[in-house]
Parts: sequence; C-alpha cells; structure tokens
Amino acid sequence: MPATLSTTAWPRAAIIREVGLRDGLQSIARVLPTAQKIEWIRDAYAAGQREMEVGSFVPARLLPQLADTAALVAFAKTLPGLKVSVLVPNLKGAERAMECQADAMLVPLSASHAHSLANMRRTPDEVVADIGRIRDARDAAGSATRIEVGLSTAFGCTLQGRVEPAQVLRLVQAVLDAGVDCVGLADTVGYADPRAVRELFDLILPVAGDRLNCGHFHDTRGLGLANVLAALEVGVTRFDACLAGIGGCPHAPGASGNVTTEDLAYMLASMGIETGQDFPRLLALRAKVAQWLEGEPLHGVLWRAGLPKTMQVPDATAATATA
Amino acid sequence: MPATLSTTAWPRAAIIREVGLRDGLQSIARVLPTAQKIEWIRDAYAAGQREMEVGSFVPARLLPQLADTAALVAFAKTLPGLKVSVLVPNLKGAERAMECQADAMLVPLSASHAHSLANMRRTPDEVVADIGRIRDARDAAGSATRIEVGLSTAFGCTLQGRVEPAQVLRLVQAVLDAGVDCVGLADTVGYADPRAVRELFDLILPVAGDRLNCGHFHDTRGLGLANVLAALEVGVTRFDACLAGIGGCPHAPGASGNVTTEDLAYMLASMGIETGQDFPRLLALRAKVAQWLEGEPLHGVLWRAGLPKTMQVPDATAATATA
Repeated sequence: MPATLSTTAWPRAAIIREVGLRDGLQSIARVLPTAQKIEWIRDAYAAGQREMEVGSFVPARLLPQLADTAALVAFAKTLPGLKVSVLVPNLKGAERAMECQADAMLVPLSASHAHSLANMRRTPDEVVADIGRIRDARDAAGSATRIEVGLSTAFGCTLQGRVEPAQVLRLVQAVLDAGVDCVGLADTVGYADPRAVRELFDLILPVAGDRLNCGHFHDTRGLGLANVLAALEVGVTRFDACLAGIGGCPHAPGASGNVTTEDLAYMLASMGIETGQDFPRLLALRAKVAQWLEGEPLHGVLWRAGLPKTMQVPDATAATATA
Repeated sequence: MPATLSTTAWPRAAIIREVGLRDGLQSIARVLPTAQKIEWIRDAYAAGQREMEVGSFVPARLLPQLADTAALVAFAKTLPGLKVSVLVPNLKGAERAMECQADAMLVPLSASHAHSLANMRRTPDEVVADIGRIRDARDAAGSATRIEVGLSTAFGCTLQGRVEPAQVLRLVQAVLDAGVDCVGLADTVGYADPRAVRELFDLILPVAGDRLNCGHFHDTRGLGLANVLAALEVGVTRFDACLAGIGGCPHAPGASGNVTTEDLAYMLASMGIETGQDFPRLLALRAKVAQWLEGEPLHGVLWRAGLPKTMQVPDATAATATA
C-alpha cells in the first residue's frame, strides 16, 4: 500500500503502550516491590499513558519478577480509561488474564521455528493451535478480554538467522483465521531496519488491514526510532516502548532493549503527532524508575538533553516573578 | 517534491563523510597527536571511507586541537580517490585551504541571527557577503577547491529558539546566487525531527536541486538516524557523521553529538544501500579511537551489539578449522 510522501501523510495521533513493567522487568533479575510497580503505573497514567502491559501470566518460578501481575491488573483497572494488557504464553495464562478482566492478553508467536522451540517449547503451528483454543475459551466464557498476537522475531532471529516474510505472512493469516482481535510485528532481537519494516508491513497490511496495529521495536543497534518512523509512514500508529529503554537483549550484553518511551514520545511530539504525554511528569517518573533500578543498564537520551527551547512550556511561576 | 513510498525509492548508494576529526575533535579539549590523526585517516580510508573533513582553518589559539590541519590535508591528499574537506570560517581560512589544495572547503553559515553573531561575530548576511568574496578569490586564483556551505542551526537554535524555514530558503538562495558549489542543511543543536527534515528539504530542494546534497544531523535527542532516514526519503544521499558519535553539544553536557558513523553505516548497509564500509575495519578503528579518547563521552551502539547474524561474513579460518 504505497502512500505519498507529503506532510499530510503523518497521522494526527499515535499510541505508545508502556511495556516496561513486562518486557523491561522480565529481563532484569532484581524484583521490584509491588508498591513501586503500582507507583509506576499511577505516575505513568498521570503522565498521560493510556495503554500499559503490566505483567505476564507465566509460572512465578520462571519469572519471579512478574509474580504480582494479578495485583497490578487489579490496581490498573481502577484507573479510568487505561487499557490494561498482560502477556499470556498459553491457555492457562489466558484463563488467569480473563479471571482478572485484563482488557487485552498478548500471546507471543515466534515466526522463527528455532526461537519458538527455544522460547515456547512448541512449534509456531502448535502455538497457532493453542491460540485457537484460547479464542474458543474466551468466547465460551463470554469474556471481553481481547486477544492480541505479537509476531516475535518477525525480522530475523539470533538462533536461525533469516526469517522469511512469507512465513510471517502465513502465521498472521493463520491467527487472523483463528479469530484473534489484532496482531503486531515484533523485532525481538533488533534485526529490523527501515526498509525491512516498510517491506514487511507493506506485505502484511493488505491481508490484516486494521487488525495489524502494533509495532514492537528494539533499539539493539540504534535503529529503534528509525524503524518506528518507517512503520508510521505506512500507517502504523501504535507502538510498544519501555521507560528508560529497559529490557536489553540477552544475546548482546549491555545493548539497548526496547525503544525508549520518553525518546519515542519526544519524536512524535516534535513531529506534531499527539501521544497525550506530559513530559515533565514522564521524565520525573523516569528519574524515579532509574533510582529504583540503580545499577541496571538504562538507555535513552532525552532525560539528559532535555526538551528543545522551542518545545519548553514557559514556567508560570518564573513569569510571575519577573512580571 | 513528493516521492512515492515504495521499495524502489531507496537509493542504491549513499556517501558518509567522516567529520570526526573536525566537528568531533573541536569540542574535545584534549589534543590528539598528529600521528594518531594520520592513523585515523589511514584506517578510515582502508575501511572504505572516501570523504573526510580533516580539520578547520581557524586560528590555533581558538582551536589548538585542530592546529595541524594543513599537515592532515597533505597526508590525506596522498590517498587516491579520497575527497578531503576542511572547514573555513572566513577568507583567510579559505586562502589556506586553497594553498594546501583541499578538495572542498566548508563555510558555515548560521540561519539563526543570534547564533551567527555568537559563533561568527557577523550577521548571516555579512557571512553571505564573505562567501561571495571567497568565491571571487577562488575563481581569481584558478583554484579547484570546491565551496560548500553548511547551513547551520537550520532546524532551530538554542539561543533564539525557532528558525524560520523562509530564512533558511532565503540564505540558500543567496549563497547559490553567490556561486557556491553545493549546500547542506545542518541540525547543529539537535532540534530537528523527521517531519521538519522532510518539510525543510522539500522546501529547499526545488530551489537548490542537486546542489543541496548534504544532511548534517546531531543525535542530541536520539533522532539522528530517523532524521537521516527522512532526508534519504526525499532524495538526500550524503551525510556527515562522526566515528563513536564524538562531538557532543555544549548546551547539553554528556548528550550525544553527531550521528555515529558506524551506526549510520550499519543502518544503510542493512537497508541494502551501499556505503563501501568494511565493518570489521571500521569497528577496529572505532576501538582505537575510543582508546585514544579514553574518558571522553563516546556514543553509538553497534560496537557493543555487533552485526546481526544475517549480516555476518563467515570466518574463513573458523570454517577451515571445523571442516
């Protein structure tokens, strides 16, 4: 779906889903106390965030960092208008997500056969079959929890290397046939580039239409925001990101993880694309999270450079003082 | 000049001009020995670099770090096919650039009136008049040194804030009328975003045509590569960059400086756009420069993450060993 490169092509608004509490914290060994996570959710909401992935329903012995997911969903659900999502690896996780009335459950599906076996201990097609069972269970229960599939390793894989776009297309078609509500493409290991992003979304969009509505990019090799831009240009307006760029890549120690929330919010705001983010509050929360995670590798640059003069809100107090 | 967003829109090749020896080192107090700078030029050339800005003809009392510029031009000129440029702030500098037969001299021209006065101690129009005198002197001398104007603070200014695109257009027109060979747009302080890049290049390209041929972006707020991508999409195929992202911004201590050479080269290579860079050599040079500049803030992420598996060249030795 070729679009025209003109200023009118930019969307009016875009959504940033904060996934730091799930994708970020799952790769940090330290366990943040539930009270701090609740403070994070509350402050992010106050800063304008309206979509958050707050945790993962995986066995606590695998990811003790995320063992309090049900409590976080319960708290997040008290904030009006906040869409609360959780990751679920299987039917059992999906049942827990529905029990606590999460707005959406994200099921990861690896496009890479090798990654699927290593990460999910099932082939991609076995996961597709499970997704069908999750959908059946959801409908049988009359649950309103939406099912979103995250196509991971869609742009390549550290285990098997190249991932064929045709395989991504086939799997997207399969999960749409299985009746999921929406899908997103994820560059799990930081292999995507703007050309690959444009080409893969251009391939999938005619099949998935509006049901393809999320770009999940990692900044492992510095291309996170350029990849977001490429996706934005073909019509994607919803992106995952982590505050302070937490997350990392287990295969590249010290390398950046997810796209950094505050830097992405800055790019979009600077381009005149609304995200509803309040920068002073967002950066104050970033400072708080940085303190909680002291010693962990953090990323992002806006916190250091600050907003440009052209985007700064005049300080009302200072104005009064000099009036 | 709206283009069509399709895979055929990507250029086959692009040029990265290494400006670390000038824009990078000028903002680092430490003075690198000439022998190390020569090693840098030699190794960058061996890694495939074919354009380098090696220094600046400003008084040595102002920038002692760059006092050996003439010696560096002399060495760089011995490397076949290397285009050697230097920065010149005025006619006196231009005379020195012509004396040592630099291939190009870059004259900075601030679009911001306030920045021009602070940095050049002349108004933009006074600098335009000087550029006319440089062109007259160049032609009178029969020199082959090309004149390139770098429109600095084209996207905004830390001193005056907003810079009007109409002012940039007026100045580009003025220097083209003065007979310069080419112009580039520079985001000196890291205020640009992809939308501003597209809009400003779209405004200037119909006037300047092929003579607008360089994008100089800083990564102060993380948008360096996204801005390169936006410029690439409207037809720009030549970009300035600094190895290890050296340079910084005096107004944002610790913030990133110029776009990082190795990360930019990676983005372009991953997109199938040729830059002629040999990554193992480029990263080996990066490691060397990092050692020389130990303690200075360096940037970039490719050196840490490494190339993706899909771009790695098989190691012939290893293959033999396991055969």
